[in-house]
Amino acid sequence: MRFLKDIIIERGQIFPNNVVKVDCFLNHQVDVVIVSELAKEIYNRFKDSGVTKILTVESSGIPLACLTALEFKIPFVFAKKRRTINLTENLYKANVLSHTTGKYSEIMIAAEYITPEDKVLIVDDFLAKGSALHALIDIVNEAGAKLIGAAVAIEKGFQGGGDALRKEGVRVESLAIIDKMSQDKMIFRDE
Amino acid sequence: MRFLKDIIIERGQIFPNNVVKVDCFLNHQVDVVIVSELAKEIYNRFKDSGVTKILTVESSGIPLACLTALEFKIPFVFAKKRRTINLTENLYKANVLSHTTGKYSEIMIAAEYITPEDKVLIVDDFLAKGSALHALIDIVNEAGAKLIGAAVAIEKGFQGGGDALRKEGVRVESLAIIDKMSQDKMIFRDE
Repeated sequence: MRFLKDIIIERGQIFPNNVVKVDCFLNHQVDVVIVSELAKEIYNRFKDSGVTKILTVESSGIPLACLTALEFKIPFVFAKKRRTINLTENLYKANVLSHTTGKYSEIMIAAEYITPEDKVLIVDDFLAKGSALHALIDIVNEAGAKLIGAAVAIEKGFQGGGDALRKEGVRVESLAIIDKMSQDKMIFRDE
Repeated sequence: MRFLKDIIIERGQIFPNNVVKVDCFLNHQVDVVIVSELAKEIYNRFKDSGVTKILTVESSGIPLACLTALEFKIPFVFAKKRRTINLTENLYKANVLSHTTGKYSEIMIAAEYITPEDKVLIVDDFLAKGSALHALIDIVNEAGAKLIGAAVAIEKGFQGGGDALRKEGVRVESLAIIDKMSQDKMIFRDE
């Protein structure tokens, strides 16, 4: 998506360890006008797939999931990383390795919110090694729901998570794929 | 807001320790059609106040903040509870006591995203004792920004946080205020 690549080039910052900092518009401060455009693009790519529910994981996936759900006019669910007193009963759980913190964490979803009737589209801000997506896919499978695919804003193609999922047969749509990064440059995959 | 009270009565569940569980539409599964209506109501109440930025705290405040920001066509910022490698520099910090976990936690915002020029509307899903709002107000003050007010979906009036803030002169708009709760009933404050 040319629109997103231009914004990443203009507003993103490259940090050590292949970190692309886009927290001025995507995952700390959120420019809802921009993220709305991303949501519309995801809607266009999946609008004929019968999606009934959007699934993401807290926190930085929530804005894009929320605005994508608004396009589809369907609910979204965000997996939680911490158990609260609201979340005590029948749960689906999976483990995620965070690229930004380097730690494993458990994610949880109340079982009632993903059912065998659901056709699920997973949405997230970033895709690197794919640990979060794998965990969400595990939950979709455990629930007996149908996985329609995954849509992310930015994929770090050089970390391989997206292509591994595609080889497994998962439909992964990334709005911008960074195939190479150096200290001062990003090279995007052609669409 | 009659609309929200009716939904709380129909879809909310009362749990021990004065917990109102609304995670089927507000803070785990999110019904974006409902939350959009709440966002429109917040917009109507604050549309003449010159708001330039919406501020919330991860995670459950994000959906309402996101859709409210969309109504205003301005950015929102969510304070983070965990430091990631994205968040290393100049920060504003404050402490929050969580009503649902019973623990203190630090929240952080990159200083660049709240500036002295900003007129800030704080948005959250719940207001109980007001610890999260106080922490966010501390950050607004530390940044030298102007606080316009706070808007929350559900206020637990009997826990006093909202009225204490109003006494301090903060404009607090709650879309539904629960003034009394028993095991099987909620009594709402008249508007």
